[in-house]
Amino acid sequence: MARPRFGLIGTGFIGRTHAIALNAVGAVFAEREAPVCDLLADSSPAAASQAARALGFARSTGDWRDVMADPAIDVVDICTPNFLHREMALAAIAAGKHVYCEKPLALTADEARGIADAADAAGVTHMMGFNYICNPLLQAAREMIAAGELGEIYAFRGSYLEDYMSDPAAPWTWRCKRELAGSGALADLGSHLINLAHLLLGGIARVQGDLQVVHATRRDPVSGERRAVENEDIARALVEFGSGVPGTFEISRVATGYKCGLTFTVFGTKGTVEFDQERMNELRWYDAAGPAARSGFRTILAGPDHPDYRPFCPAPGHGLGYNDLKVIEVRNLLRAIAGEAPAWPDFHEGARVQRVMEAIEHSAATRSWTEVPA
Amino acid sequence: MARPRFGLIGTGFIGRTHAIALNAVGAVFAEREAPVCDLLADSSPAAASQAARALGFARSTGDWRDVMADPAIDVVDICTPNFLHREMALAAIAAGKHVYCEKPLALTADEARGIADAADAAGVTHMMGFNYICNPLLQAAREMIAAGELGEIYAFRGSYLEDYMSDPAAPWTWRCKRELAGSGALADLGSHLINLAHLLLGGIARVQGDLQVVHATRRDPVSGERRAVENEDIARALVEFGSGVPGTFEISRVATGYKCGLTFTVFGTKGTVEFDQERMNELRWYDAAGPAARSGFRTILAGPDHPDYRPFCPAPGHGLGYNDLKVIEVRNLLRAIAGEAPAWPDFHEGARVQRVMEAIEHSAATRSWTEVPA
Amino acid sequence: MARPRFGLIGTGFIGRTHAIALNAVGAVFAEREAPVCDLLADSSPAAASQAARALGFARSTGDWRDVMADPAIDVVDICTPNFLHREMALAAIAAGKHVYCEKPLALTADEARGIADAADAAGVTHMMGFNYICNPLLQAAREMIAAGELGEIYAFRGSYLEDYMSDPAAPWTWRCKRELAGSGALADLGSHLINLAHLLLGGIARVQGDLQVVHATRRDPVSGERRAVENEDIARALVEFGSGVPGTFEISRVATGYKCGLTFTVFGTKGTVEFDQERMNELRWYDAAGPAARSGFRTILAGPDHPDYRPFCPAPGHGLGYNDLKVIEVRNLLRAIAGEAPAWPDFHEGARVQRVMEAIEHSAATRSWTEVPA
Amino acid sequence: MARPRFGLIGTGFIGRTHAIALNAVGAVFAEREAPVCDLLADSSPAAASQAARALGFARSTGDWRDVMADPAIDVVDICTPNFLHREMALAAIAAGKHVYCEKPLALTADEARGIADAADAAGVTHMMGFNYICNPLLQAAREMIAAGELGEIYAFRGSYLEDYMSDPAAPWTWRCKRELAGSGALADLGSHLINLAHLLLGGIARVQGDLQVVHATRRDPVSGERRAVENEDIARALVEFGSGVPGTFEISRVATGYKCGLTFTVFGTKGTVEFDQERMNELRWYDAAGPAARSGFRTILAGPDHPDYRPFCPAPGHGLGYNDLKVIEVRNLLRAIAGEAPAWPDFHEGARVQRVMEAIEHSAATRSWTEVPA
Repeated sequence: MARPRFGLIGTGFIGRTHAIALNAVGAVFAEREAPVCDLLADSSPAAASQAARALGFARSTGDWRDVMADPAIDVVDICTPNFLHREMALAAIAAGKHVYCEKPLALTADEARGIADAADAAGVTHMMGFNYICNPLLQAAREMIAAGELGEIYAFRGSYLEDYMSDPAAPWTWRCKRELAGSGALADLGSHLINLAHLLLGGIARVQGDLQVVHATRRDPVSGERRAVENEDIARALVEFGSGVPGTFEISRVATGYKCGLTFTVFGTKGTVEFDQERMNELRWYDAAGPAARSGFRTILAGPDHPDYRPFCPAPGHGLGYNDLKVIEVRNLLRAIAGEAPAWPDFHEGARVQRVMEAIEHSAATRSWTEVPA
Repeated sequence: MARPRFGLIGTGFIGRTHAIALNAVGAVFAEREAPVCDLLADSSPAAASQAARALGFARSTGDWRDVMADPAIDVVDICTPNFLHREMALAAIAAGKHVYCEKPLALTADEARGIADAADAAGVTHMMGFNYICNPLLQAAREMIAAGELGEIYAFRGSYLEDYMSDPAAPWTWRCKRELAGSGALADLGSHLINLAHLLLGGIARVQGDLQVVHATRRDPVSGERRAVENEDIARALVEFGSGVPGTFEISRVATGYKCGLTFTVFGTKGTVEFDQERMNELRWYDAAGPAARSGFRTILAGPDHPDYRPFCPAPGHGLGYNDLKVIEVRNLLRAIAGEAPAWPDFHEGARVQRVMEAIEHSAATRSWTEVPA
Repeated sequence: MARPRFGLIGTGFIGRTHAIALNAVGAVFAEREAPVCDLLADSSPAAASQAARALGFARSTGDWRDVMADPAIDVVDICTPNFLHREMALAAIAAGKHVYCEKPLALTADEARGIADAADAAGVTHMMGFNYICNPLLQAAREMIAAGELGEIYAFRGSYLEDYMSDPAAPWTWRCKRELAGSGALADLGSHLINLAHLLLGGIARVQGDLQVVHATRRDPVSGERRAVENEDIARALVEFGSGVPGTFEISRVATGYKCGLTFTVFGTKGTVEFDQERMNELRWYDAAGPAARSGFRTILAGPDHPDYRPFCPAPGHGLGYNDLKVIEVRNLLRAIAGEAPAWPDFHEGARVQRVMEAIEHSAATRSWTEVPA
Repeated sequence: MARPRFGLIGTGFIGRTHAIALNAVGAVFAEREAPVCDLLADSSPAAASQAARALGFARSTGDWRDVMADPAIDVVDICTPNFLHREMALAAIAAGKHVYCEKPLALTADEARGIADAADAAGVTHMMGFNYICNPLLQAAREMIAAGELGEIYAFRGSYLEDYMSDPAAPWTWRCKRELAGSGALADLGSHLINLAHLLLGGIARVQGDLQVVHATRRDPVSGERRAVENEDIARALVEFGSGVPGTFEISRVATGYKCGLTFTVFGTKGTVEFDQERMNELRWYDAAGPAARSGFRTILAGPDHPDYRPFCPAPGHGLGYNDLKVIEVRNLLRAIAGEAPAWPDFHEGARVQRVMEAIEHSAATRSWTEVPA
């Protein structure tokens, strides 16, 4: 198969991460050739041209529709603000491109499901950008759970705590506006946690949520005026998985001091496993077997015996970084496009995540337990 | 004032902790004389006699009513299983004794309130055994919050995770039976967490709880038969303090690998403070002031500049232990009896804790948000 | 046997710790009766009287020689500044008392050996106050090493880092003066580390040391004048045990930020064990057996399955404190006096520690490897 | 300036790391264009051809001398086993190429100095592959020290502990043979620690070293016979910097359980800073200013306010990985080649590191303090 040609839209934080991964994936995963960094779209021709040069793309455009129209492009990679995802994804699907989209897939669960169905109907490969779950240690945790190493699983704790909006003086951004961002901490951070929970324990059946806006207004850095914050700074939820396992979620963008506190604990009859993205190269495991006097949580350092670590480094404990997760994700996408492996998390997973988010919002609004639609 | 004479009832885990503290408090806190370890009551004359000798008590009895009837006794110290607390406390109050009672105060909130009211009416000093809050670092955390060092407080996370019932083969005990223990993890562990939350942030207004029994039956070690577990192994709750601050609780006696995971995080606009009893000599504090490049959670080791540490050791970081907390608690009780300081946590606090526990149970049963009675 | 009657000399930091332990040991270790806190000596009758009342002693004196002369006293407990140890210990031995002495035993190794020999000749029980090694987790580490759980041992790293003299403005004290303190960080901190190394791996054969005075003078808080610091702030050494195992020591009283950093790592072919007194309830163990993907240092929390923990608390992870170590030490002393167990660390161990200290000093002075006399 | 064309020799562990970095550096550091991955040399034409395809190189050769002879090549990148470094570096210098060489530069200090002098004479840019020091947090530590944030520096502790040879059954490799590897743990790991010490505190004046071979023979995986291990498994040293600051080094390739324990602590009058590569996104800092009750080591998470982090990710705490360090190193090399910044660590630093290594070896052999030649 020829090297897939990528058209990347958006060159902010996450767009650059994608570009770095597209440049590096070939050298890291010798199993396959590098994709072609072909066309880069940004908000203006000048910005796009400069970014293309910086990020190793061959061509650029100031109009994202050019990406869809270009027959040379095999894969459309969407790294724009949330409110643009739907229109771009649908256009890419309509053009018969494979689509790779950052989370959240859309602003509502219904929209997300529509996109996923359209992608299926068009027969294109579709994948979400939920990079955290690509961590070799999370894949190891998934394997431990699936293999019964923890015994019967009966409880889940998860959090995603950051503090990027913690400062009361932090400016108003598009993330605070519902029609641009959808929900707040839920969409930006909670979506990752929900996806991670899905990876480990499967679907979520019902939730009891609670939302909190800590700072009701923020200063618009352009106008200087205070504007309303239209979505939650913190989301909390009691949850119940389809398997019957209960758990809790805690999600915050105002968790002063936390920078990337995506964590989970999974409790089982034979052991417990837990993780914190701030120490992303460590997995903590308690094995209930063995004498009490020698038992304790062990800190497993990521190494070549964990899935997908070895191509980065043959030595354990040397450490992967955040950007490496995206390299693994891109490799997964390339495999899916080549038909070598199922695409996951696909857009259906993206829609499923969004249904959980909406159920939490509905539950918080109605102060009642809410079923997550199947 | 003469040295108060103690009558201690019960010589299990916590009874011994009380005895050790009563023996040590005088030497630790040179501010006051040691109490008199006078009369020890246990389930039989022989057991009591042996225990009295071991624990440094002058006299013993196999009948706890002797303690109430003895005019020499100033303070009754109740360290028996939960279901006995009420009868003993009321008898002690009726006899005009000061009463020091382990948590939970009673099996129901109504009973607890009744005991507190009776104690007030009798004019005796009453205090609960919520030893964890005596930790110098928790007192420091309370001071930091009260002094505004964290800015405006807006979120709370708390947990108390142990695994003493985690093993499916762990035997049935009285703690599994409602009429002997009341609730399960809530009464045994949650009561401490609720009291700690009260200390830091004041009263709790409403809750949304969820209870889980992981192991429905356990083997009775006497009969060998399997008996029903009548109360929860895990309790989870969304909570809202009277101040409007929301939070979450997570309480488990089946948290495989956790031995004493009483933890909290308090988030404020200027900083965050957190604690884990498994590292009881460390307080983690993030101060949002100062440049980002030099900011991070700092680990404050307990030391003589924190309340009540210095009498144990003038050097920082040398470490207090679990039993030392009880020594501080006894000192607090002695101060209250001497009229030098208010008694806290008193029986009203004990009853308040129980109202929160019951509200969580009610909420879990009705699947709805539940107000905590004032 | 009758309860041993103690005469305690000195009521500073460590004297109070002894007093607390003497008060608590009976209640903690039900195996034996409490010793009698009989006579307390301090520098003046008034100070001694006040301290006796505070610390639960029956009688007091302003002249330590009264302790030696008093036939009621069975055990002399020496908690005075270093330079007084020798005279007091010899006097106690001459009076036929059992002697319990804080480290270092004397100002020189020769003096220390003389005291040990005198104690042997008198047939009295003698024990050093090296409390850290009483930690249940250190006893567990010793057992693991002895039982071969780490395989063949081949390397040792140890440190004792504190910062009590770190501040350049910290005042001059008797600890800075050779004729009062002997060596500096070595005597105060290093003695503990050497004793700990002895416990784990046996005697030390030779050393290559390096000493450093960071702050050459300090202000005398009485006279206001600057006085010379006559001994080391930091000691470092390459060491070689008699078994052939090499290692390193690092000892500092000016390790800014460290409060009680007594640490060690022992490396073996099958595993590694390590410890840090600042987290005295945790032992870290790496077991080289098992698959790499599941291997990591585990954090073992102290619990009732470790030696001497259970009498303090039947639940794991609740935590011992610094003062609890002294309670265990006192129990060990009582056992030795009762002839139930050998006294260790006895004065010969105290002298052995001192020979290592002197060898490090000699090596640093001569810049050469130095044999430790047997 | 045109994009520099790289000729890379060697495609093992570290060669692949170089290739990944060469592919990624352009996208990460938008400040400059990507270098050209032009010619790849490996031990056979077939291996080289396959590797070139996998690692994104345009051309390949089975003879490294082709790289030197090729006029298109601007930079020779040497990633071969230690014993080949010298010959290749001298050939590249002779051909007027810029040279980028993995550590150690040569098998002896004299050879290393000769290479550095030759490179200077030829006027080419030369740089060593000491990637760890590229960590944004280590650059921050260097800045903190240089700016006096720690006050006057007076002590250093450093270690580099791995366990890749810890298993007694680990096979004999070329690293065990002096004429192929030079020294053992010193060359492979110690060189990094020495370079790091140089970065932070400058040159080392004298050392007292101790070397240890734990496993005297290992099984040759080819012949099946046991072969001698000709160099040290562990190196320890007392050191003294040119500034007068003393310190210690501990270096091991048999530190069971340690995977990448490159650590240091720098002590100063105003604070302490420390680091552990196994948690490479954390810098621990103790600031002695401020009240004792609020002081503690803080854990600073790497973020965009630290040097060179932002181009990887604008959000703090998301984490860099081992391979990212090499990307920064390559960027430094490109800057040096472009004349925008001095090359450091250059070959003179490589030679300086080697002189320290040899001084440790000499000291261990003679059992005496040894001066490091200037």
